[in-house]
Amino acid sequence: MKIIIINSGSSSIKYQLINMPTKEVICSGMIDRIGLDSSNLTYVTNSTKLEESLPIADHKIGLEKIAELLMNDNIGVIKTTEEINAVGHRVVHGGSYFTDTTIINSDVKEKIKELSILVPLHNPAHLLGINVAEEIFATAKQVAVFDTAFHQTIPVVAYKYAIPNALLTESKIRVYGFHGISHKYVSEKAIEYLKKSSKIISIHLGNGCSMTAIQDGKSIDHTMGFSPSNGLIMGTRSGDIDHSLIFYLINTLGYTATEVNNLLLKESGMLGLTGYSDLRDIEASAEKGNIDCQLALAMNAYRIRKYIGSYAAAMNGLDAIIFTAGIGENSSYIRKLVCTDMDYFGIEIDMEKNDIRSKEIREINTLNSKTKIMVIPTNEEVEIANQVYNLLLN
Amino acid sequence: MKIIIINSGSSSIKYQLINMPTKEVICSGMIDRIGLDSSNLTYVTNSTKLEESLPIADHKIGLEKIAELLMNDNIGVIKTTEEINAVGHRVVHGGSYFTDTTIINSDVKEKIKELSILVPLHNPAHLLGINVAEEIFATAKQVAVFDTAFHQTIPVVAYKYAIPNALLTESKIRVYGFHGISHKYVSEKAIEYLKKSSKIISIHLGNGCSMTAIQDGKSIDHTMGFSPSNGLIMGTRSGDIDHSLIFYLINTLGYTATEVNNLLLKESGMLGLTGYSDLRDIEASAEKGNIDCQLALAMNAYRIRKYIGSYAAAMNGLDAIIFTAGIGENSSYIRKLVCTDMDYFGIEIDMEKNDIRSKEIREINTLNSKTKIMVIPTNEEVEIANQVYNLLLN
Repeated sequence: MKIIIINSGSSSIKYQLINMPTKEVICSGMIDRIGLDSSNLTYVTNSTKLEESLPIADHKIGLEKIAELLMNDNIGVIKTTEEINAVGHRVVHGGSYFTDTTIINSDVKEKIKELSILVPLHNPAHLLGINVAEEIFATAKQVAVFDTAFHQTIPVVAYKYAIPNALLTESKIRVYGFHGISHKYVSEKAIEYLKKSSKIISIHLGNGCSMTAIQDGKSIDHTMGFSPSNGLIMGTRSGDIDHSLIFYLINTLGYTATEVNNLLLKESGMLGLTGYSDLRDIEASAEKGNIDCQLALAMNAYRIRKYIGSYAAAMNGLDAIIFTAGIGENSSYIRKLVCTDMDYFGIEIDMEKNDIRSKEIREINTLNSKTKIMVIPTNEEVEIANQVYNLLLN
Repeated sequence: MKIIIINSGSSSIKYQLINMPTKEVICSGMIDRIGLDSSNLTYVTNSTKLEESLPIADHKIGLEKIAELLMNDNIGVIKTTEEINAVGHRVVHGGSYFTDTTIINSDVKEKIKELSILVPLHNPAHLLGINVAEEIFATAKQVAVFDTAFHQTIPVVAYKYAIPNALLTESKIRVYGFHGISHKYVSEKAIEYLKKSSKIISIHLGNGCSMTAIQDGKSIDHTMGFSPSNGLIMGTRSGDIDHSLIFYLINTLGYTATEVNNLLLKESGMLGLTGYSDLRDIEASAEKGNIDCQLALAMNAYRIRKYIGSYAAAMNGLDAIIFTAGIGENSSYIRKLVCTDMDYFGIEIDMEKNDIRSKEIREINTLNSKTKIMVIPTNEEVEIANQVYNLLLN
């Protein structure tokens, strides 16, 4: 079964064509800057790596261009679009409607549209992608895979805020949770590896950063809430703050609400603390003695440690922690800061294992460590393909 | 040594005259509604209980009235104001300037004034009280005891937010911490009781609610930050939220920033969740089966549990938790919810001991519980008197 994964943003389309159940990636690539004078397009197969700059006016033209390349006589990988059995659309927000991967129909589209008010930059772009894909891959099943779905098992005690009830019932303000596709993927890999369903904390450290408490395979709490802005310290996002500082900035220092929002989303986090947003630069500077960088890394790790404790309390136990995504998989520095002096939680890191670079699932704890410390490479595209495949098979 | 403790609010004065070092309370009372048509005054000694309604135009007239009563021929307790050796002023915000109790001079007053921008409802009122007390108790030492001082030992990794550095260096936006007088008092009592300096979490549950991680007698982390609005769920305050919901309320639902601030401070917390702000009403309704009340109590306890885990991680260990203040001392219901299924942290509550009502320091854990669960009545006035006494003695 050939499944094409589409992640459609407001001015970009990322795609990956995967053969299931072998999980072989036949082809992948992206288009960005859609609607601008010049867009960038990439198209990569086993034998071809194409990069091109050309004007692409809208998502339809973009996806048509991708379909053309897929069927190209020289560098193509299919003969007709009918060979594509399904299109898996990543959708950021499924609200309280979608607890699982879902075949798209007009009702599903209506709900994705309705949720746009919560994520105006995401859901409308996903809808664009869906509508265009329905035309171009007309014979394929269109399937939505939601980043919020995995977190729909979070119990009310954890998803509700202590604000007037009407804001939940009428305005749908609650914890939704994000990065669910990744947290689901790595926690299932961990359960498979550990050979038991356990009390697991997955730590996704990438552009965005979040943690999930996973008990018996289900998300029961998560660091991000109504939006992907709170919780851990991120590249440019503050994560948790005392919200009163927002009112202080507005009322006393004269900021507008929009300026504060931008400040917390785009000028804060590691960037605000160090002047850099890329963790590799920050680690390099910290190692050269830059105090701001050392402190920012320590703050980052301190917050992760506190959430580990917090989720161990939520689950009344802890069997394993998982590091994943760009930073989680590659930064031995952050992993070391997080795991040192955590023996109260049975966490004992093996410094040598921690320093080994690998793309494999691995343990980096000592033999005596009661709590497993795992590094598990995430793969959101394969997870989406898996979910679509399983849905269509059943 | 006779010390009068003064807690001066914008339209109120609370006072207590304490004999040191015996800690005997000679007299106590309050005036509220200062500046309104009719104020209420109370004055209580061992032999007298006076309640009076009369117009009191300002703080000076109020404190003069208190001095008159203290020296009254029939119900007074002193002959002249010169018998008062010191006035201990509770001051909410000492910023980064004051790590300890301080004798008030013009420089100290200048700094308390400067910090008014952070707590416009508190510090200006304290200054009023100080200025009037300097006139009326002219021979007494004037001493400031700060609610933030105990938290000045919180390390930078915990007091700094992940926002642009200039907001800390120039605008002084950081974690200050509150309820410090209470957290200090009960943690010192616990250390005395346990006969060792330990890893302690004190849980102050009153009108405001907060928790402090205390290692070797020092505050190292705290749930409230820049202001007393975040952290735990309180009577009408939300505590922690995803701050993005503020921007959603403003940008999408049309609230003003001031409306959102009021909503989070005055209409949220237990009130927003249940319609009641008094915990006794909520517990009574929960016991009768009110689902909103049951859920609100569970949410409240869940957040406390998560902070217990979080601070156990911050200290890499846990020896004791302390419940204090109105709710902490009296609600066996909340204590039970917090301590059940927390054996991973060595926390095992003894249900019978938990149900005993007492004004004494006590343990409510089972004999096997590795972590002590203590109930310690707080006494902020005695703590202030202690601090003033120790300062003047040295």
